[in-house]
Amino acid sequence: MRATLIHGERDIRLEDVAEPQLITGTDAIVKVVAACVCGSDLWPYRGVTPTKHPHRIGHEFVGIVTEIGDDVSRIRIGDFVIAPFYHCDMTCVNCLNGVSTSCLAGGWWGADDRNGDFVDGAQGEFVRVPNADGTLVATPEQPSPEQIPGLLTLADVMGTGHHAAFSAGVSAGDSVVVVGDGAVGLCAIIAAKRLGATRIIAMSRHADRQALATEFGATDIVEERGDEGVARIKELLGGIGADRVLECVGTKESMDQAIRSARPGGRVGYVGVPNGGSELPIRSLFGANIGVAGGVAPVRNYIEELLPEVLSGAIAPGRVFDLELPLAEVAEAYDAMDDRRAVKVLLRP
Amino acid sequence: MRATLIHGERDIRLEDVAEPQLITGTDAIVKVVAACVCGSDLWPYRGVTPTKHPHRIGHEFVGIVTEIGDDVSRIRIGDFVIAPFYHCDMTCVNCLNGVSTSCLAGGWWGADDRNGDFVDGAQGEFVRVPNADGTLVATPEQPSPEQIPGLLTLADVMGTGHHAAFSAGVSAGDSVVVVGDGAVGLCAIIAAKRLGATRIIAMSRHADRQALATEFGATDIVEERGDEGVARIKELLGGIGADRVLECVGTKESMDQAIRSARPGGRVGYVGVPNGGSELPIRSLFGANIGVAGGVAPVRNYIEELLPEVLSGAIAPGRVFDLELPLAEVAEAYDAMDDRRAVKVLLRP
Repeated sequence: MRATLIHGERDIRLEDVAEPQLITGTDAIVKVVAACVCGSDLWPYRGVTPTKHPHRIGHEFVGIVTEIGDDVSRIRIGDFVIAPFYHCDMTCVNCLNGVSTSCLAGGWWGADDRNGDFVDGAQGEFVRVPNADGTLVATPEQPSPEQIPGLLTLADVMGTGHHAAFSAGVSAGDSVVVVGDGAVGLCAIIAAKRLGATRIIAMSRHADRQALATEFGATDIVEERGDEGVARIKELLGGIGADRVLECVGTKESMDQAIRSARPGGRVGYVGVPNGGSELPIRSLFGANIGVAGGVAPVRNYIEELLPEVLSGAIAPGRVFDLELPLAEVAEAYDAMDDRRAVKVLLRP
Repeated sequence: MRATLIHGERDIRLEDVAEPQLITGTDAIVKVVAACVCGSDLWPYRGVTPTKHPHRIGHEFVGIVTEIGDDVSRIRIGDFVIAPFYHCDMTCVNCLNGVSTSCLAGGWWGADDRNGDFVDGAQGEFVRVPNADGTLVATPEQPSPEQIPGLLTLADVMGTGHHAAFSAGVSAGDSVVVVGDGAVGLCAIIAAKRLGATRIIAMSRHADRQALATEFGATDIVEERGDEGVARIKELLGGIGADRVLECVGTKESMDQAIRSARPGGRVGYVGVPNGGSELPIRSLFGANIGVAGGVAPVRNYIEELLPEVLSGAIAPGRVFDLELPLAEVAEAYDAMDDRRAVKVLLRP
């Protein structure tokens, strides 16, 4: 089958690789219907994180189950399934605590599992799924083609945006600032709105993303950054800042922007993979009682809550995909996102 | 009148100073009935934070109102009042948001107020109280002598321990680790218990403090620190760590201990004034989804909730005072706490 490998900075290749086989009784094989490129895939693509040796890449996919191991009971052959951006058993204490990203039996796509067996990356034709009964969520029926982009966002960006809002404690009547206008930031706007935020300020400088932010529920757009951005936020929010701030980028600058945009006693929910090398400034947080929560989003725990709203069209996170390419053009998909020609690219094998 | 000044490292003096006068219509004058020494007073006492010039010190007191300004309406002459460790109006947006430590009109004892007028420190005979209607809370009737230590803890340590537990989100059935066995850490045990924690692990190496911790509700004591402390906590808590950790010290080591004692998805509530010069390690927090919240405790916002339980004896935070001295011996009070001969010293002018 064909699958995507990253060889180094700006070097993405589709190659022939061995087709996956069932290894344990809890595995399933899924034929990928749609995958995509994540903002976090751009860190190795841009060389910000080094690629020491070529490896599989991609961690978001939906597809059809083609094989199941003997111990798989919830998932059936033919099911249309959503996979979170990691695998997990949903039975260990961490999964039950709502933190399936810390699953004691879990792991990552494109890497070895805890038995030392390789697990495929998602930007390919087939994927071996460990802990299939825990990892996968089947839709009640086969989705229509129009529903697929929305379902694919439950693999990562919609659940991650939700995690930012949930971690920040967004509730009815809150004012919310969203830092970051990528797919996760845009989904965080959807999440803040459905949790009851009445004022949602999107920090964005791109007209197309501003339009989508507004469509998703942003009430205000702030183009300024840094000191000017903070001043503008405070001007809009009674001089004191936002109840909740959702940090959806992961740089030192974006986290600084987020913390300084929060009001005293406010909370920052952060989901941007930390890439700025900086730590959190405890004295500023302490003096103003600003809490910080979040991390690598346990999106598997959120799929059941969000799925009905995606299927009904109550929320439309699939709108973040503004380019669709065949898997054969995966290199162009990375390039388009790197150039900001696309917010997020959907790939069809 | 007599009031305490710090002149430098280990140099505490009781001196004759001018008696306070009403300056604005919202002021009150309070005759101090009891004051005390705070763990945070030990930072300048030990020279960890430098004392550039002699200044008044002390920020915890209860007393009797002797004068009120023309605009004071809630507080009356003769009231027995509790003052939080700062003054605040309880009408600004930050006070109403529950963060009276960020009061837009507030300030600190022993420093100038926002009008540039001096506000007395608490380790003295009288204090001018700005924003008296907001700052002070009167007891329903004159307390008995036995009630005074408990009431004095509402000025700081009991409210601060509560803030750690509240910020960490302690709720029914939680497992809680308390880092720090000073007065705040001990009060945090009381707070965790009244919020419903069923497992409370106190980290302490001092037999007298261990005994008080147990009396307050600790179910386990851990004497180990660092890697061994983390290992012991995990051993006690199913291998994964605590739901909530209350950091009540403020050093790099104690915060590190706190973060490493939390389970994935757990939360650290911290109230120790950061003195270690270190920042929060965002990558560890991110990977395990450990949230951090807290800061300088808005204890004024908690007095009404805690006061009835102190008056009824349902909670007994006054037990943290294990030494009582006349104000004339204030230097000995600092020395006793510095030497750990006392957990907390109550001073009577």
